[in-house]
Amino acid sequence: MNVNFINPFLESLLNVLSTMACMELVPGKPQIKTDNVAKGDISGLMGMVGPQTKGSLSITFEQSLALQIMQNMLGENPGVINEEITDLVGEITNMVTGGAKKLLGNKGYQFEMATPMVVSGKGHTISHQANGTKIVMPFSSPYGKAFIEICFEKAA
Amino acid sequence: MNVNFINPFLESLLNVLSTMACMELVPGKPQIKTDNVAKGDISGLMGMVGPQTKGSLSITFEQSLALQIMQNMLGENPGVINEEITDLVGEITNMVTGGAKKLLGNKGYQFEMATPMVVSGKGHTISHQANGTKIVMPFSSPYGKAFIEICFEKAA
Repeated sequence: MNVNFINPFLESLLNVLSTMACMELVPGKPQIKTDNVAKGDISGLMGMVGPQTKGSLSITFEQSLALQIMQNMLGENPGVINEEITDLVGEITNMVTGGAKKLLGNKGYQFEMATPMVVSGKGHTISHQANGTKIVMPFSSPYGKAFIEICFEKAA
Repeated sequence: MNVNFINPFLESLLNVLSTMACMELVPGKPQIKTDNVAKGDISGLMGMVGPQTKGSLSITFEQSLALQIMQNMLGENPGVINEEITDLVGEITNMVTGGAKKLLGNKGYQFEMATPMVVSGKGHTISHQANGTKIVMPFSSPYGKAFIEICFEKAA
């Protein structure tokens, strides 16, 4: 995968959480994913379709981090993953993908976004099935970890 | 959501499992989803983007049913959800969405598929975040349950 595809997603997540939740995540080194090691408790998922390529994205949070983001954004912390947290993760997924879409559009890569889905479940894993390199970007914070995973393939 | 959108997905899952795995699922009554009750152990997810609408689909299986599908298709049963089962659920998701896409295309509804994602995790739930009616279609079998969930909204 072109490195041009990776940084816009990384930048976009940092930007969204900084501006919306006053939270500065620390990005780790993006890696080629070889197995399903990025476990988390709540994930936002998005499909993407463009003339040059199609693929999928996921943003996975540990529960403690998702709850802290809600605390920072809305001043309340339900203590468990509920429908409000689920909707918030869906909205973050929309914003992060939309931000990356804009950055990539400026570079000549166009795609349309489907609609987000959010998975809740302790310690779940996600497998992106596109026939392309899978990239995982780890992020850390005092409140827990997050991961972005993306995979693009050439459109049929 | 137009009922024209529901039956092609239902028919397509029945058709794929009948022809690929010699398995006859029994469809229940499609319902409007009001909460995240469809828990499962492995799910295939797909984003869809078209000129008239966009949305998302998930197909969720109980582990026992996913393992039996693998047994019927490939003659082996690993006993746990592993990478082969994950890939199989991704492939089924591709085939079911592709079958529904063809049926809907014949009715004048066009959309492009993103690439499938597969979620593994005991008892996870999925929340489709499109601004439209969420439909859940339950299926039963002697080996366990499956659910299709779809949600479409008007394209922005």
